[in-house]
Amino acid sequence: MLKNDEYLNLINEKLNEYLPKKAEYENNLIKAMRYTLNLPGKRLRPILALEFCRALGGKIEECLPFACAIEMIHNYSLIHDDLPCMDDDDLRRGKPTNHKVFGEAIALLAGDGLLNLAFEVMVSKETVALVGEKRAILASRVLSNACGKDGMILGQVIDLESENKSISMGLLKKMHINKTAKLISAACEIGGIIAGANEEQLLKTKEYGLDLGLAFQIMDDILDADQNEKNININKNLSDKENGKSTYVTMLGLEESKELVNDLTNNAIESIVFLKDEGEKLKKIAKKLSNRVI
Amino acid sequence: MLKNDEYLNLINEKLNEYLPKKAEYENNLIKAMRYTLNLPGKRLRPILALEFCRALGGKIEECLPFACAIEMIHNYSLIHDDLPCMDDDDLRRGKPTNHKVFGEAIALLAGDGLLNLAFEVMVSKETVALVGEKRAILASRVLSNACGKDGMILGQVIDLESENKSISMGLLKKMHINKTAKLISAACEIGGIIAGANEEQLLKTKEYGLDLGLAFQIMDDILDADQNEKNININKNLSDKENGKSTYVTMLGLEESKELVNDLTNNAIESIVFLKDEGEKLKKIAKKLSNRVI
Repeated sequence: MLKNDEYLNLINEKLNEYLPKKAEYENNLIKAMRYTLNLPGKRLRPILALEFCRALGGKIEECLPFACAIEMIHNYSLIHDDLPCMDDDDLRRGKPTNHKVFGEAIALLAGDGLLNLAFEVMVSKETVALVGEKRAILASRVLSNACGKDGMILGQVIDLESENKSISMGLLKKMHINKTAKLISAACEIGGIIAGANEEQLLKTKEYGLDLGLAFQIMDDILDADQNEKNININKNLSDKENGKSTYVTMLGLEESKELVNDLTNNAIESIVFLKDEGEKLKKIAKKLSNRVI
Repeated sequence: MLKNDEYLNLINEKLNEYLPKKAEYENNLIKAMRYTLNLPGKRLRPILALEFCRALGGKIEECLPFACAIEMIHNYSLIHDDLPCMDDDDLRRGKPTNHKVFGEAIALLAGDGLLNLAFEVMVSKETVALVGEKRAILASRVLSNACGKDGMILGQVIDLESENKSISMGLLKKMHINKTAKLISAACEIGGIIAGANEEQLLKTKEYGLDLGLAFQIMDDILDADQNEKNININKNLSDKENGKSTYVTMLGLEESKELVNDLTNNAIESIVFLKDEGEKLKKIAKKLSNRVI
């Protein structure tokens, strides 16, 4: 079992291998792609992929290209999400957002470039030599399905179209499942695919990811509500409640939302009982996410 | 050999199969993706893929998913290109651009969705059952490499960064090769890959595509210059020359640009001599492109 730091080093090193610094090759596009990829982050999704791969008996180095592809897709979604026509955010992970540094046009293209690069990496000669055609195809299929019009992008659209209005609990859940949980679940499943896990194992792996992803997003609502309460006190910002947006907290209240996070976390942990001792780190990740304060 | 109309029907029908109209599934994202895909267009790239596949002894229906993926990528690039932070265009193919109809946020996501869908289609169960893992991987690799940071998106960045200034002939060519010719060349090559063409045939196929793509773009410069001349006469717009942008016409003049288009067209036709009679339609396409008036 690797420690978080060891995983982070592996992932960060490989990500930068895919965007090498070569004088003749350097341009604003590459710089912009590298900029957001290199912002300090937890690397939750690639770590889940690598750890599921390891826990299921696979080789971490075989999963590394896919873990990087997942992180590229996550980062492209952040760049596009932050654009003025979307959330119009100036800061991301405490640093200026991509378009604040490189301008909107380059930020748009850097997002496109990262999405495209994710697929380049998964079907590259190097990756296919490592894992074979069958697993490269399966992993690409899982990732592309999780991120498209029936996954992450659908979640974005629901989010966009439910701004400033209240929505049903069903739609709120659909939004979070699609926007957040499916990519996290895909990361877990891809770890399993690269390890050669069987159907039943993959199913449990996906369940863990979906529950974890939903819990993660509800925790975000809870932390936002805390933050907004503080902001209201210093008269700085509108809470989601005040701007009319539905969240788990506005719909269920704080206590019930926290209970739901606990239930989902327990379900996630339940799903990976079959991993026995090898599931220890994955249990810890789930518990840590449900107790995080930022 | 199929006629253009027959190809168009095949392509349009299959494209709409990938974005089916189902009440429970319909949303603005799907509508926006479908909107630009269904604007009247020549379908040059997918037709090239299908015709190369046929000419090289392959089955058109095996190439159809890839032809559609290529068209999806072309359309995503158009949607993003038209956005206010890029070219800020109101019209595309005589109709309002995507963001004019659906708003910037949905247009951005529709572009992302089409890029993602192209890869979903190429690695889907259905496609892999049709062509096998090996060809699905090869085609996905060629397309993703043609469209990323070393291909189409690089071309966009060069275009963006050379606005309002004059650039060298070398950089201008690099821009067109990347922005336009590589995707056209990939379409041709993918036709060959699905047909099971050998290395030498694939090389010739790619050469045809690159020459055709460059000729196509220089013709655009020529037609733009014509158009701008007319516009200046009615005092409507600035020519590329006046806004300082380098084009083949500003650099080589009209006559030499036309000669270059002819040379490139002849080279393209030369590259596919090995196809003998089966190359007739591809020759016609090349000739037609070099003689187009719109």
